[in-house]
Amino acid sequence: MYHVYAFATPNSVKVPIALEELGIDYTLHAVNVRKGEQKSDGFLALNANGKVPVLTTDDRNFTLTESSAILVYLAEKHGKLLSQDPVRRARTFEQLFVHASGLSPAFGQAGYFLKFAPKVVPHAIERFSGEANRQLKLLDATLAKQPFVAGDEYSIADIAHFGWIWRRAFPDLTFDETPHVQRWYDAMFGRPAVVRAIEKLELLARENG
Amino acid sequence: MYHVYAFATPNSVKVPIALEELGIDYTLHAVNVRKGEQKSDGFLALNANGKVPVLTTDDRNFTLTESSAILVYLAEKHGKLLSQDPVRRARTFEQLFVHASGLSPAFGQAGYFLKFAPKVVPHAIERFSGEANRQLKLLDATLAKQPFVAGDEYSIADIAHFGWIWRRAFPDLTFDETPHVQRWYDAMFGRPAVVRAIEKLELLARENG
Repeated sequence: MYHVYAFATPNSVKVPIALEELGIDYTLHAVNVRKGEQKSDGFLALNANGKVPVLTTDDRNFTLTESSAILVYLAEKHGKLLSQDPVRRARTFEQLFVHASGLSPAFGQAGYFLKFAPKVVPHAIERFSGEANRQLKLLDATLAKQPFVAGDEYSIADIAHFGWIWRRAFPDLTFDETPHVQRWYDAMFGRPAVVRAIEKLELLARENG
Repeated sequence: MYHVYAFATPNSVKVPIALEELGIDYTLHAVNVRKGEQKSDGFLALNANGKVPVLTTDDRNFTLTESSAILVYLAEKHGKLLSQDPVRRARTFEQLFVHASGLSPAFGQAGYFLKFAPKVVPHAIERFSGEANRQLKLLDATLAKQPFVAGDEYSIADIAHFGWIWRRAFPDLTFDETPHVQRWYDAMFGRPAVVRAIEKLELLARENG
């Protein structure tokens, strides 16, 4: 049985989506990031980096951090959501790293400087909101050419991008100028696994709010 | 024959290091990021995201962006630098994503706000320098336990982290408090492939400066 330490965050949601898609049983454990529980000693013993999500096993003999690394691990172990074809596979990793190094930090920093920074820093808002918007438009251009982010097959790269697109209100983004992202996002919500994962994560956050 | 579009940047250097380690022939092409050439129409046709490095083939039938995706592709294609063992492999991907989503954006933003921002923004400097320093210390704790970043074997995760550690002067970081990173960095420079890749990239930057 897998255990997932998570909260209703952009990175957390990826792991239950993948587990639901793969039909694998798991238990969710709340780490209330609003209360800073990810920096507690107990949690730092699980992930010294102080971030959710974390995947572990009953005996804790295997513990893995970094949402995208967890996606790759689960996809390879269970033989789904990551093509064996070298080119499709390369496109999937390309989008995983576009997300991890580009879209995700931009969305996170834009939201921080818009909502949480102790004072208004116009240059930082402009820098990160501009980059978040640019990343959203790049994703739209990608999705204008193909149904899924890495090509014509649903993959862990869709699950990776979904987290922050689902939480786009944090950096004040909308789909007004990105109709292809809107179409893809709606299609994601047509997947029962995605809906189930979000319901479970939102219930977890409500019960541990 | 591979073609690598690159400059003497933290992300660019990863690709020639991997190619040198794998003993694969390649041609380097300069994209002078100091002059903004990565935003030129010609380059945007190669990578709409406007970033180096890019890997492509003679006929340009296959073009791949994102330095870490290129590392994964080359390692899988040539059967080296990425273990087949599921746990070692998971640790390698974990560090690839720690780098892409954590260390790399922190080093980049810290350097930007210290060196390039149009005015001094103390909160942003504190935020990103603090995070860059935290990431360097996390890496030091990892390297205190094992010779390489993902365990006891050299892997593409070492090559990924090396880029920004090599360019640590940009965010004003040193090894004063991270002796294990220093030891690992010195060991990296003991690898002829690493030395050759850096020499070629620095020559490219000098000739196209």
